[in-house]
Amino acid sequence: DNVSPTLDISDPYANDPKRHPALRVNSQRPFNAEPPPELLTENYVTPNPIFFTRNHLPVPDLDPDTYRLHVVGAPGHQSLCLSLDDLYKFSKHEITVTLQCAGNRRSEMTQIKEVKGLEWRIGAISTACWAGARLCDVLAQAGHQLSDTEAHVCFEGLDCDPTGTAYGASIPLARALNPEAEVLLAYEMNGQPLPRDHGFPVRVVVPGVVGARHVKWLGRISVEAEESHSHWQRRDYKGFSPSVDWDTVDFDSAPSIQELPVQSAITEPQDGETIESGEVTVKGYAWSGGGRAVIRVDVSLDGGLTWQVAELDGEEQSPRKAWAWRLWQLQAPVPSGKKELNIICKAVDDSYNVQPDTVAPIWNLRGVLSNAWHRVHVHVAP
Amino acid sequence: DNVSPTLDISDPYANDPKRHPALRVNSQRPFNAEPPPELLTENYVTPNPIFFTRNHLPVPDLDPDTYRLHVVGAPGHQSLCLSLDDLYKFSKHEITVTLQCAGNRRSEMTQIKEVKGLEWRIGAISTACWAGARLCDVLAQAGHQLSDTEAHVCFEGLDCDPTGTAYGASIPLARALNPEAEVLLAYEMNGQPLPRDHGFPVRVVVPGVVGARHVKWLGRISVEAEESHSHWQRRDYKGFSPSVDWDTVDFDSAPSIQELPVQSAITEPQDGETIESGEVTVKGYAWSGGGRAVIRVDVSLDGGLTWQVAELDGEEQSPRKAWAWRLWQLQAPVPSGKKELNIICKAVDDSYNVQPDTVAPIWNLRGVLSNAWHRVHVHVAP
Ligand SMILES: [Mo]
Ligand SMILES: [Mo]
Repeated sequence: DNVSPTLDISDPYANDPKRHPALRVNSQRPFNAEPPPELLTENYVTPNPIFFTRNHLPVPDLDPDTYRLHVVGAPGHQSLCLSLDDLYKFSKHEITVTLQCAGNRRSEMTQIKEVKGLEWRIGAISTACWAGARLCDVLAQAGHQLSDTEAHVCFEGLDCDPTGTAYGASIPLARALNPEAEVLLAYEMNGQPLPRDHGFPVRVVVPGVVGARHVKWLGRISVEAEESHSHWQRRDYKGFSPSVDWDTVDFDSAPSIQELPVQSAITEPQDGETIESGEVTVKGYAWSGGGRAVIRVDVSLDGGLTWQVAELDGEEQSPRKAWAWRLWQLQAPVPSGKKELNIICKAVDDSYNVQPDTVAPIWNLRGVLSNAWHRVHVHVAP
Repeated sequence: DNVSPTLDISDPYANDPKRHPALRVNSQRPFNAEPPPELLTENYVTPNPIFFTRNHLPVPDLDPDTYRLHVVGAPGHQSLCLSLDDLYKFSKHEITVTLQCAGNRRSEMTQIKEVKGLEWRIGAISTACWAGARLCDVLAQAGHQLSDTEAHVCFEGLDCDPTGTAYGASIPLARALNPEAEVLLAYEMNGQPLPRDHGFPVRVVVPGVVGARHVKWLGRISVEAEESHSHWQRRDYKGFSPSVDWDTVDFDSAPSIQELPVQSAITEPQDGETIESGEVTVKGYAWSGGGRAVIRVDVSLDGGLTWQVAELDGEEQSPRKAWAWRLWQLQAPVPSGKKELNIICKAVDDSYNVQPDTVAPIWNLRGVLSNAWHRVHVHVAP
C-alpha cells in the first residue's frame, strides 16, 4: 500500500510500544489484543508480554522521574502531588488479580446480532500479581474518610484523545476506602515495572471489578459526589435488555458495570478441532467478580444433556477476596461411537450464581457481559 | 377419620400455633407453608399472618419473662446471659429484609427429576420490617473481635427433635461483625413481637443470606473456628452438580449456601389461567442475595424470543445493602391472534448476574437454588 516507512509524526500511535507477536490483534490503533486460547491457560499467572491489552487511546510515554500523581485533598486538607518515590513510601501490598474486559467473548454476541465493539474472543481476561500502594492509604493521607457513603473516587489517565480528553472512570468511595477490597495503585506487574501497555508507571487495580475501572497511566484522583463524567463511565460499559437498540437506549437508566458476573470458557480443545478418540482433556478458566470464589465448573460432552465436574487447579482463593481465576480441567472418555462432540462449560460461584444457558437473551447493543455457557464443537478422529 | 379432638400430649406438634387459612401448606408437621401468588405481591411488606413459614421442628412455646439468650464470651471475657429487657437496651436497629428459603421453587426441579424436599412453589419468599439489636453490638459486648477472619458464628435454636438435638446454623464471623452487613437479633416483625412461627421471642436476621441461617427461637450464640456442626449446616442446604446423586454425594465438597443468587417469579397471571385479549398485566417479584440490587427485570410474552423491560415498584434499595425485593409489573398489549402465551421473567442484579434459562442444568438432589427463568403458560380468551 501507500504506507511510508518513516515515522509519521502526525500519527498519535507512532510511539506505541512493540508487542508480542503471539497476540491476536483486534485493533491496531488503539491497540487491542488478546492471547490465543492455548497460551491463555498455559500459566496461572499470565506472562506480561501476552497479558490481554485493552487501550482506548494512544499509549503515553511517561518519564518516571518527572511523573506525578495528583490526589485532590478532602475539604480542609492539602492535595497530594506524589512522585514515584513518594508512592514507594506507602506500605507495599501485593495481590494476584484477574482482569477482564467487559467485552470479553463479545464475538459470540455478534453472531446473534450486530453490536458496537471490538471482536474479543475468549481472551480478554488475564491474571497478574500486582504490587503497589493501597488506594485507601493514599486517600487517608489526603484526608478522605467515608463521610459520604454514596460518593465516588474518580480516576483520570494521562492518555488522551486529540481534543485533550483523558480516559476516566470511577468506583464507589466505599470500595476505595475498604481495606478488604484491596484496591491498589499498582507500579509492579509480576515483579516488573508496569509495561507501557499496562499503564506505566502507575495504574489502578480494582479487584473483582470490570477492567474499564482499572485506569492506566494514572494522573489524577479525586473524590466526587457523582460518578466520573467520562464517556466510558456514563455512555459505555453498561448492560441493557436485548430489546434496547441505539434508537431507544437511555444510558442513564442502567448502572455502570462494576462487579462482573460469573464467567468461564474452554481453552482446549478449540472450536473445529479434531480430537483423538479414547480420552479427551478439556481445559479452561473460571472467574467471578466481587471477590466471589468459583466453587465448581461443570463440563458437558453432549451439548448439555449430562455434566461432569471438572478439577479446579490454581490457587485456592480466600473467602470474599477471590480476586483471581481458577484454571480447571476434565479428563474423560470420549463417548464411543461419537463422530463429534458439543463440549460446554459452566461455572458456579460461592453465591451460587450460574452462567445463563444461551447468549441471545443477554445480548445487548454494546456486546458487554457475554457470559453464557461456552460451547466448543469438535470432531472425533475415526 | 380417627383423630381425637382432645389434645394428644404425645404429639410434639400439638402446641403449634394456629395459622392463617390462606397459606398453602406443604407440610403440617413440621409446619411449612407459603402464601398463594396473588397474595404474595399484594403488599411490598408481607403481612405477618401470611409470611411464608419454614419450620424444621415443633414450635417451642417460650415464656418471654424467663427467656435467656446465652452468648459465649471471647477468651478472657465473661459470657452473656441476656433477658429480653437486656436485649432491648442495645441500640434498636430496623431494616426491611426479604427472606427466601433455599427450596423456593423446588417444585419446578421436581418436574425434571425427583428431589428430596418440600414442594415449595414460588412463595417460599417474603419481606418484613425487622427490628432488634445488632449482632455486632452484642458480640462486641461479649469481647469478640475480628481476630480470626475465617471464624464462624454459630446459632442454636430452642426448637429440638425428640433426641434433644436443636436446630443450628452458622455464618462467617466477618459478616457477623461487619456493621454494614446489618445482621440482627430481631424481636420485632412489622412492628409486632415476633409471631411464634417466626421465632418468638428472638430470631437471627441475616440480610442477603439464605433463610436457613436466620435461626429462630434463638437460644445460644458462640464463635467457633469451624462452621456449625448442625445437620442443616453440613449435610443440607448445599448445591451440587446435576450429575451428583445420593450414592455419590460428598457434602463436604460444596460450601454451605450463604448469599443467594438472583431470583424472580411471576405472580400474575398464574399458570393455566385464561386472560382477556387486549392488554395483559404481568406482576411479580425479583431479589438477589448479598445486598446486590435488582437493576432490571425482562419479561417475554413469546417464550423468550423478545423481551420487554418491566417497571420496578417498591422501595429503591441502597447500594451494597439491597436487602429487600423489588416488586415489578409490565402492562403490554396481548399480541393479536395469539390463543396462548408463554410468559417468562428474568432478573438482573447490580453485578449483572442473570438467571439461567432452564432448570435441568441446575437441578440438584436437594432441589435447592431453583432460580431459572420463571415460566407461566396462559390461554387468551377468544
Ligand atoms: Mo473493557
Ligand atoms: Mo430454607
